[in-house]
Amino acid sequence: MNALFAMLEVEVADSDFDRIRKQVRQFVVERDWDQFHSPKNLSMALIVEAAEMVEHFQWLTEAQSCNLPPEKLAEVEQELADIQVYLISLAEKLKLDIVAAVEKKLVLNAEKYPAEQVRGSARKYTEYKDKARK
Amino acid sequence: MNALFAMLEVEVADSDFDRIRKQVRQFVVERDWDQFHSPKNLSMALIVEAAEMVEHFQWLTEAQSCNLPPEKLAEVEQELADIQVYLISLAEKLKLDIVAAVEKKLVLNAEKYPAEQVRGSARKYTEYKDKARK
Amino acid sequence: MNALFAMLEVEVADSDFDRIRKQVRQFVVERDWDQFHSPKNLSMALIVEAAEMVEHFQWLTEAQSCNLPPEKLAEVEQELADIQVYLISLAEKLKLDIVAAVEKKLVLNAEKYPAEQVRGSARKYTEYKDKARK
Amino acid sequence: MNALFAMLEVEVADSDFDRIRKQVRQFVVERDWDQFHSPKNLSMALIVEAAEMVEHFQWLTEAQSCNLPPEKLAEVEQELADIQVYLISLAEKLKLDIVAAVEKKLVLNAEKYPAEQVRGSARKYTEYKDKARK
Repeated sequence: MNALFAMLEVEVADSDFDRIRKQVRQFVVERDWDQFHSPKNLSMALIVEAAEMVEHFQWLTEAQSCNLPPEKLAEVEQELADIQVYLISLAEKLKLDIVAAVEKKLVLNAEKYPAEQVRGSARKYTEYKDKARK
Repeated sequence: MNALFAMLEVEVADSDFDRIRKQVRQFVVERDWDQFHSPKNLSMALIVEAAEMVEHFQWLTEAQSCNLPPEKLAEVEQELADIQVYLISLAEKLKLDIVAAVEKKLVLNAEKYPAEQVRGSARKYTEYKDKARK
Repeated sequence: MNALFAMLEVEVADSDFDRIRKQVRQFVVERDWDQFHSPKNLSMALIVEAAEMVEHFQWLTEAQSCNLPPEKLAEVEQELADIQVYLISLAEKLKLDIVAAVEKKLVLNAEKYPAEQVRGSARKYTEYKDKARK
Repeated sequence: MNALFAMLEVEVADSDFDRIRKQVRQFVVERDWDQFHSPKNLSMALIVEAAEMVEHFQWLTEAQSCNLPPEKLAEVEQELADIQVYLISLAEKLKLDIVAAVEKKLVLNAEKYPAEQVRGSARKYTEYKDKARK
């Protein structure tokens, strides 16, 4: 089996997420933009992109936000990408591994919000959220 | 070669990003929180998490933001995870593929910001950004 | 009449908004926090407070957001104040007059969104907003 | 004295802030946009405008953010106005008095951050902020 993995090394080693991480990195390096990419600045760029996402939904009802016309969905897809790109840049800069961070956080969240206690009710959900903040 | 891939199916098919996508999905389903997860609401949750990231950096200099003490970095890692989790939930809800979206967007960005024209100067960089918005 | 105004100078000169502007200014000076208050940093503090407002509404329906229980409303009132305080600090720092800025902007907005053309329909409203961004 | 105030009623009663509040209200009514102005939606519009402010500063140094060229300052002034307009709309909708809210909040803040304890040091400042969140 190890021999097979060795044979397939490139394909197996480079996951899809690794691939876009490298592409994002290369994009920044080619433009020499690293000098502007302090974590402080990247956090600002990130929230600006998040706000462009919010802007698409601000005057829609929740139901409308679930049924976007194709041209709106295409714009939303671009905002999604912009947010992911800055999140990757920020993680790179801080030498953090996004996938590992998510896996650790989901374990913490599962302790904070036990499924059997918070299931289904909006009231419980928001109360739990509020309590968790304090 | 196809036979080899078939043999290795599970390992090859499930990339690290697929894995966290499934974990995020399962977390939501187990808690029956899908009912609150309209794209509108998720865009709000996403920007709230992005702001918690910004909050860590708001009074730091750019240099300080590059050299976080370990306990601060651990908090920042959690915010990073929270943002990624909501971004995944939003993409799932809209049936969008984040990796594909990033790859498409990087092609567009490369056309918008040709490396040889924008390289290195902050002035060019911001002007290009501004121009791109209009 | 001028004589009357002169007699009433303090009361007439100091509007309610002037009063809170001065209080905000004094608060910052007494703590020697002016050194952290670059417009860049203040814009970050402002959006962090705006996100705390968003957080109160993220899982509520629009109808629920119109009928907050008293203790929630009291929290929202504090977020409102926080946003206003940072907006005042930012304006002071940039030597901008908020009241004058609003009056100028409302004139521009009235040209951009003529009442007779945009009245009432959500579709027209959002389209106008989108068009205005481009 | 009361007689004098009665004589000057209009001028004294309508402060500058009251004036823009009424203008904002009238603008919304004339366009029949009140139907879209749930507090939930207004909180989204508010943070979108706050992000447009952040966008102006994201790649600037703190020093640059203190010395904006006139055309940039004019744009920033418009963002300032947009934020104030939505803040006023949100307060109206929630029947909250912004000026009173700020005055109450400054009293609370003065207790939370006693001048003699927090004066001047960035370290104390951020620690106090962090502590206050928890």
